Amino acid sequence: MVSGPAGSGKGTVLAELLKEQNYRYSVSATTRAPRPGEVNGVNYHFLSRAEFEGRIGAGEMLEYTEYCGNYYGTPKKEAEAVLASGCNLLLEIEVEGAANVKAKYPEAVLIMLLPPSFAVQEARLRGRGTETEEKILERLSRTREEVPCVTHYDYVVYNHDGRVGDTADDIRAIVRAERAAVRRNGNAADNYFS
Amino acid sequence: MVSGPAGSGKGTVLAELLKEQNYRYSVSATTRAPRPGEVNGVNYHFLSRAEFEGRIGAGEMLEYTEYCGNYYGTPKKEAEAVLASGCNLLLEIEVEGAANVKAKYPEAVLIMLLPPSFAVQEARLRGRGTETEEKILERLSRTREEVPCVTHYDYVVYNHDGRVGDTADDIRAIVRAERAAVRRNGNAADNYFS
Repeated sequence: MVSGPAGSGKGTVLAELLKEQNYRYSVSATTRAPRPGEVNGVNYHFLSRAEFEGRIGAGEMLEYTEYCGNYYGTPKKEAEAVLASGCNLLLEIEVEGAANVKAKYPEAVLIMLLPPSFAVQEARLRGRGTETEEKILERLSRTREEVPCVTHYDYVVYNHDGRVGDTADDIRAIVRAERAAVRRNGNAADNYFS
Repeated sequence: MVSGPAGSGKGTVLAELLKEQNYRYSVSATTRAPRPGEVNGVNYHFLSRAEFEGRIGAGEMLEYTEYCGNYYGTPKKEAEAVLASGCNLLLEIEVEGAANVKAKYPEAVLIMLLPPSFAVQEARLRGRGTETEEKILERLSRTREEVPCVTHYDYVVYNHDGRVGDTADDIRAIVRAERAAVRRNGNAADNYFS
């Protein structure tokens, strides 16, 4: 699960990882409006509030949270299908949602993706040019709540300008290391002698 | 810290890692006899029992243990010099020694290196042709004590025949992931906004 403030480059980094067959993304659902270029079913499942609340009621959300006035959540069925395939499931998730998933699935790995600094983040958001000043200030203010949540995460990865390959390599290393963690290989000794 | 039973290929894997500048090895001390080709000060510091016990008495050993009738230990001064340089310190260490170091340095990372299976290990030891049948049986018997200690380790890495590069990559991934671990980056949030 990857969380990160606006401007951390989550989308770009995940796209880099998804070039490999063994990484698969579970598309989140949201009630926020699509940004220019965003495609329904690819970037997000864009739902109305009524639709989203209907899915919550039907128990179809692995987790969900409301932030900046919109719902964000993970459809359960899609995530479970990826895990059943043996692939690495990537989830882009808000800090509250991440805490909820970790509580239910302690084996999940929480990665906080950050720009190199708050100053760089602000420059990126302004450079994007797709959002109003009000939205930018809202996102920066939200960042002050999000980043301190890093203490509940397993890893912190910095996404430097123009180095998305290095950032993806950090996440690949984390996945590789986690798969070698003794706590995920409880039968190592028995298997060795069998 | 890398532990592994005889025939796990510790020496070969560490040599692969040491090709990189940012990995450095702290040469262990032992009272066992050098094997053909082993060089004093490179593979081990080969000491007499009296010399080794003198160093223990002088508090110059980070850890030491006695196994199969010989002492094995880590000279403190050498290990501390590597850590002070900022490099990754590699230690090849017995299971008892690893537990001792972990107790003193909880931030140390314990990796158990294993052959793919006990059967492969036995074939490797016999193929080596440098040891008597008695020694081989002693090492295999010792393995039955060592491998169950994996539960006290952080990671388990398998060294498959002819794939030392992959094995070294596993360890590189572990080091990279550990450096991104939140518990090693306690000031991440403060640093971000500063």
